[in-house]
Amino acid sequence: MILEVAILNVIQGQESNFQADFKKAQNIISSMSGYIEHELQQCIENSSRYILLVKWQTLEDHTEGFRQSDEYQEWKRLLHHYYNPFPQVEHYQCLYSQKLDTK
Amino acid sequence: MILEVAILNVIQGQESNFQADFKKAQNIISSMSGYIEHELQQCIENSSRYILLVKWQTLEDHTEGFRQSDEYQEWKRLLHHYYNPFPQVEHYQCLYSQKLDTK
Repeated sequence: MILEVAILNVIQGQESNFQADFKKAQNIISSMSGYIEHELQQCIENSSRYILLVKWQTLEDHTEGFRQSDEYQEWKRLLHHYYNPFPQVEHYQCLYSQKLDTK
Repeated sequence: MILEVAILNVIQGQESNFQADFKKAQNIISSMSGYIEHELQQCIENSSRYILLVKWQTLEDHTEGFRQSDEYQEWKRLLHHYYNPFPQVEHYQCLYSQKLDTK
């Protein structure tokens, strides 16, 4: 499993349009092969900034399966015009994870 | 619930020491009031880069409860000397989340 991380800086004033279009666009990623889960979170210190976290089975599920798909063209059309600067996307592998033991 | 996000750039050559010390230090955050869960992940494109994601009940559980605690001094002692540059920590609130329906 790998984690895709993208810090998204949205053009000021376009936040609510971006959020509405992301709500549609998220159904594209969640239908792709290798998709596990995602979250879109909004920054408390800077409300034009978001973080997109997507878990994929493999790196290639994102970099090849998704990015070379027809569905990616629709994702780009819906979302890419909101970003300034255009985000750098990185991939991470989990080293440690813990949860509060609530048992 | 809020998400603390820190991109951690570790001085080259100190990655394995950082990982060993983080393994100890993570027991500090997981014992704090308001802690829910955390992950430390290593960047695939740049192995000196990590992302720390911590879920807290409230913003103040992190910014006041943790950062003003005695335990934070130990956290700093263990970890802060590994970073260059020193990380900017941000907090996020979830707008959307989905998981693959495996039922």
